[in-house]
Parts: sequence; C-alpha cells; structure tokens
Amino acid sequence: MSNILVVYSSLFGANAELAEKIQQILQEQGDQVRVRGVKQIVLAEAQKPDARQGREANADDLAWAQGFVLTSPAHTGLLSAALKAFVDENHDAAVSGQFLNKAFTGMSTGAFTHAGQERVVDELNAIGAAWGCIIVPPSTALPELNTADGNPYGLSFVLDKGKLPDQPWVEQALALHLRRFSGVTAALVPLQIGGSAPTESRASAITAFS
Amino acid sequence: MSNILVVYSSLFGANAELAEKIQQILQEQGDQVRVRGVKQIVLAEAQKPDARQGREANADDLAWAQGFVLTSPAHTGLLSAALKAFVDENHDAAVSGQFLNKAFTGMSTGAFTHAGQERVVDELNAIGAAWGCIIVPPSTALPELNTADGNPYGLSFVLDKGKLPDQPWVEQALALHLRRFSGVTAALVPLQIGGSAPTESRASAITAFS
Amino acid sequence: MSNILVVYSSLFGANAELAEKIQQILQEQGDQVRVRGVKQIVLAEAQKPDARQGREANADDLAWAQGFVLTSPAHTGLLSAALKAFVDENHDAAVSGQFLNKAFTGMSTGAFTHAGQERVVDELNAIGAAWGCIIVPPSTALPELNTADGNPYGLSFVLDKGKLPDQPWVEQALALHLRRFSGVTAALVPLQIGGSAPTESRASAITAFS
Amino acid sequence: MSNILVVYSSLFGANAELAEKIQQILQEQGDQVRVRGVKQIVLAEAQKPDARQGREANADDLAWAQGFVLTSPAHTGLLSAALKAFVDENHDAAVSGQFLNKAFTGMSTGAFTHAGQERVVDELNAIGAAWGCIIVPPSTALPELNTADGNPYGLSFVLDKGKLPDQPWVEQALALHLRRFSGVTAALVPLQIGGSAPTESRASAITAFS
Repeated sequence: MSNILVVYSSLFGANAELAEKIQQILQEQGDQVRVRGVKQIVLAEAQKPDARQGREANADDLAWAQGFVLTSPAHTGLLSAALKAFVDENHDAAVSGQFLNKAFTGMSTGAFTHAGQERVVDELNAIGAAWGCIIVPPSTALPELNTADGNPYGLSFVLDKGKLPDQPWVEQALALHLRRFSGVTAALVPLQIGGSAPTESRASAITAFS
Repeated sequence: MSNILVVYSSLFGANAELAEKIQQILQEQGDQVRVRGVKQIVLAEAQKPDARQGREANADDLAWAQGFVLTSPAHTGLLSAALKAFVDENHDAAVSGQFLNKAFTGMSTGAFTHAGQERVVDELNAIGAAWGCIIVPPSTALPELNTADGNPYGLSFVLDKGKLPDQPWVEQALALHLRRFSGVTAALVPLQIGGSAPTESRASAITAFS
Repeated sequence: MSNILVVYSSLFGANAELAEKIQQILQEQGDQVRVRGVKQIVLAEAQKPDARQGREANADDLAWAQGFVLTSPAHTGLLSAALKAFVDENHDAAVSGQFLNKAFTGMSTGAFTHAGQERVVDELNAIGAAWGCIIVPPSTALPELNTADGNPYGLSFVLDKGKLPDQPWVEQALALHLRRFSGVTAALVPLQIGGSAPTESRASAITAFS
Repeated sequence: MSNILVVYSSLFGANAELAEKIQQILQEQGDQVRVRGVKQIVLAEAQKPDARQGREANADDLAWAQGFVLTSPAHTGLLSAALKAFVDENHDAAVSGQFLNKAFTGMSTGAFTHAGQERVVDELNAIGAAWGCIIVPPSTALPELNTADGNPYGLSFVLDKGKLPDQPWVEQALALHLRRFSGVTAALVPLQIGGSAPTESRASAITAFS
C-alpha cells in the first residue's frame, strides 16, 4: 500500500511497455502507482516515431513517492541521456535529503545479450545511492530470476527485435521482484521524512537527518 | 537491537582498526555485534607483521546476522583476495536464499585519494546484491558525509601512512551512517527468513521466497 | 603529431579550464588539437552563468580525431547528461566502426573527495570501449600520479570551490599522462581506418574490420 | 609475433577450455603464447574434481609478456578469489612500472545470461589499468561480436551446463577479437620498457617512465 513512482526512458517503445507491465503488477499488489516518462532529447522527431514519454515526471512525483522504479535502455552501454537529464534537473531536491530511505530499484533493456544491461542497472543504483535511497536488487538467491535473465543488480531484458520478449518468464520475474520490492518499501516508510517511526531505533534514524 | 556482523580484511591493520570503531558505535546504539576477520592468503608471514584477522568469520556468523558490514582495503583497485575468498567459500549459503532481505553496507580504505575506494564499495554492494540483501549506501544527501569523504556508495577513508585519519570526522561519519544503517536493519528484520511480518504485504514478501 | 579531440562538458567552468590546460600541453608536445564543448541541456540560463561550451563538437571532429580525451564533472556521481547526449547523438558513427583503434582517455572532476570521480572515468572508458577505441588509463604504476590524485582509471581532480586546484601537480600529472597518451595514439594510427599499416599483423587487424 | 600471456582461473573447467582456444588462435596468428593457470584456493578438493590450473603463472611470465589475456568465471558476480590472489601476490611488480604499455584484454564466463559477466571484465580491465596497461575491449562496433554475445568491455560467454557453448560463433568471436588484440599488442611493443621506439613521440613516451 505504498506510493511507487515508475520513471522510464523510451526511445523506441520497449521501456514504455515495461513500465506498463510494472504498473499493472504493482497495482494488483495494492500499491499506488504513478508511471511517468522523461523528455527524449536526442534524435530528430522523424527518427524516433516510437519515442514515448506520456506524462513527464516532475518534482511533485518525486516527493510523493515512497519507492522508485527507474528503467532505461542501454545506449552506448550506459543509461540514456534523457533519463540522466531528468536526474540532473532534480539534483537540488535529491541533495536536500527528501529522498532519504525511500526504496529504489533499477531495470534495463538491451538490444543484445550484453549491451550494457548490468552496467545500466548499476548506474541506476548509483543514482539511488546518491539520492539517499535504500537499494533493492533482485539477487541471485532466487532461482526463478536466474533462469530468467539473472542480472543480480536489477532486472534486465534482452530485447527481441526491439520489444520485450513475449515469454511468460518476463511477467513472472517482474511479479516476483516487485512483490519483494513492495514489501521492502512498506517496511521503510516509517523511516522516511514524514514517516511515523514506531520504534526508538527507527525514530533515531529519522532524527539523524531531520 | 539487531544482530550485526562486521567482516573485515586487514593486511596492514587499518581495516581491523576500522572494524573496532564500527563495533563500538553499533554497541553504543544497542545492537548485538560480532566482529570477524578473514584469513589473509597472500604474502609470506614476514611481509605482513600487521595482518590481523582475529576470530575468523564463519557460516554460523552469516546465519546469525540480520545486517552485514563488510570492509576491505583497495588492493590493485579492487577488494582484497582474502575477502573474496571468504565470499566464494560461502557461495552455497548465499544462493540458498538465507540472506534475503538482510541489510548490507560496504566500506573501504585506500592509500591515496583514489586508489579504488569507490570501486571497492561498489564491488561489496554487488556481493550484497547477489546475496539478496538490501543495500544501505551513505548517500550524498547528508552534507556531513560529503565534507568527510563523500563516497556515496559506501563510507571510505584515505589512509594516513597506513592508518585511519586521526580526525574527529571519522567517528562522526561512522556514527551518522551506522545509526541510519541500524534503523534500516531493524525495519527489515520482519522481512527476513524467520522474521515476524506483521502486515500482509510484508508477509507476502516473505512467502515469495520460502 | 597526431590529431587529438578534447570534448568537455562544463556547467560551472572547471572542465572548460581543464580542457584548455589539456590543449596547451598537447600542442606543446606537437599534436594537432581541437577543443570542443557540448550543449548544456539542464538548468535555466540564469542558474548557470559559468556554463561554457565554446565551439560544439560535431561528427566531423570525431572523424578527424586519431585520439579522444573526454572530460566530465561528476553529476549525481555519474557523467553529465550533456556529455551523454552528445554520445547518444553520435551513436550511428560509433557503431559504423569508424572509431576503431583510436586512442581514448577520460578525465573527471568532483566537488568533494569521492563524488563519483572513479565512476565517471569508468563510464567514459565504457564509451571508449563501445566505440571500439583503445583505452589509455593513467595507471597506479606511476608514483607521481598516485601522490597527485591517484585515480588509476582516468585523471581526476577534487575541485576547490568549483575550480581546479591551483597547485603544480595538476599540470605535472596532466603532462605526464598526456605525454604517454600522445605516444600511444601515434603508435595506433597505422591500425586505424585509413592508416598505413606497415606490418602484416597490423594490416590484418585493419582488414578484419573493413 | 608478440609474446602473449593467457592467465585463467578455472574451478570447473570452462575457463581452462577457453584458454586453450585462445592459445590455438593466437599461435595460428604467429604469436608466442604461454597459457598459465592460478592456484584454486576455495572449496575442498573433493568438491572441485574439474578444477584445472595446469602450470601456474609466475613473475617471470608476467615480465616476459608483451600482452595479457586474463579470463575468469563470475563468482558471486565478481572475478574469482583465485585470480585476485594471483594479482595481489604480484602487486609489487605491477607498481614498479614494468607492465607499462603492455596490451590487456579480459574475458569472462557466467552460468546464466547475466551472472556478472560485464562486471567481471570490467574488474579485469581495472586490473589492467592499475598495472599501466593499454586496454583493448572488443567494442560494439563489430556487428559479428554483437550478435555473438555483445559484451563491449571484454568477450564473455554464457555457459551451457558448465561448458562453453558448442557453437561456431565462439571461435569466430575469439578469432576476430584476438586478431585485433594481436595487432594492437605489436603496435605497442616499441612503447614498452625495453622496446625500440622508432619515433620521437614514442621515445618520449618511454622516457617519461624510465
């Protein structure tokens, strides 16, 4: 029952599709979800007919969220400039400490087996770390995830002709990881700014930053 | 009031000293703490008169812990072989899922300003991710940490002639970060194997893995 | 006597200053140098009075160069969105193979000791790798560099109130590393597209990609 | 016609097989090749009947080589402790500068699609950087490599029941990358300690470090 913000960067459509799947699963679990895109800043319009950003993420969405899911394609092996521009624009909010102890997980897509998917989720986690978030990686301790794609730092997907693989393990892996992410987010809410920390140790964790 | 295991690798003494400081701070906060070393596997004995491992970490320590603090010097810019050997030895326990949702934070030391301290904590976090832990980085959102050393992925320390800097900010940074780490660990305990998950969403997070 | 392109991203002036120093040193060594900025895409104009991009890097500059020096500040611990946008815009040229065997080195700046400087040069090197370049890191094998800043993956600088440190080691470290970079670039030119490979093994290396 | 040292870590046999393939290809290209293993330090003997180290790499091998190929499985998402122990043991030789300007490329294997293969080659490259080597990544600019496995930072292989995939692209990718690696190594030899630098710019690059 937490507030989860999904921010995606989608130049050719796959990450927009991924974000929709994430939204559906989180809502079925009972979370409040906002799905937001980021402005696509490279390539002329004619070169990116499938670029999708829907409603753009803004500072209010970031403040509202108790947990973040960020997704990006691997572009030149790194996260997209479009998503990074969104992060850079919101730097002041991040360093003000308002994201402290929010839950964070990153996901990525790539055009071939190793197009930088591990590196992109690692970059996303670095953003979460800088923001003061608590990072929730999928882990290799879940056999179902290993046989899916296995990326221990964040879920990732090898695209099939530019689209998410049309296979049942995609939804299964998302459901398994997001269920855990949702549980961790709920557990962290009392430690967030404005949270009601029920125990002394939680209270002191908050106090340290307020 | 959680069980925290501190595992350090110390070839020349600095990380053993760091582990002692961590222990003292965590105990003052009310946590149960075990401090354990790892077997030093490189160099002949005569070349490492300051190597310290104290009591060696074992599988029981890993099972007992609800939160992990791992510290390593940067050796050739990466974590020490000694600490990695400990991780490799305990691979089976990790993939069995018994570390799921335990809290994790990494720390590192280096002989000069950039000897790999960022990379070492990033490797440590990767171990935490593979183990199924929840990662607690120090963040750049805490101004006190920025003016200390600033490493957003894990606390790190530039050594002064092989020793931790003899400056008040070292204890201050440790106290600030460990207070937060302790709070997050306590919040995650109900989600760990054997934890008592009081809400449905937490319960389902557990169920997913048991 | 090689063609070196320096591309910098500078929101507050430090990397523009760094690029000028690089240019001066390379020219004194006899290299042909182009120094180019990238469009600053975040923050309103009033918030970045010191943003400097000079002449913007373009596809012709990339084709002309036999060696690349890329510099970026650490923004949220990662390379700037502005520099990444430049990379994303030129993706097609990169994957066409025209940058194969060009020399590459990355540099970074940060506002405090560990603001992501190691990570940023690592990201830059990843761009070089994706482009098919040969990476020239500064190494820890040069004691002069260790006592300067020591970053083994790319030169980096902790800023002093937003500016490069006003200390002799800055130019010394740049001169030492760029002298080596220049030598490696010259050695690689025969292996680049259009190069005159004087030996069979070099010729075959070219053939493999043309 | 260069001296190439292949160092592998093989607990279950796949990297030993990889090293043999590398040796065969390099020898067919005319290079002098030494293939060496590292001592396997984890697990009891009975648990690793397929551990293979053959002749162990030593300091003389490192000195002899003009180019290095290092291969490691992904263990807990990072390079094996066994290979890291070899690196740590030879730290003094590395920082003495004797590896300056030698060519370096890393390779990795993993049990599933993303078991840390990207991260392991990145760690290997970091070792090469610290040693003062010049890094030769495979690049994404070679379409044949992208359709193989695609890892732009170092060749990597998803194992099939513990073995290298029995498919023609494995040898093809190795041949393509090693042909380029061999050409780059030959071009760098004059810049190495003891090399005959034929041009002034190369000579000065050597001078800087001798």
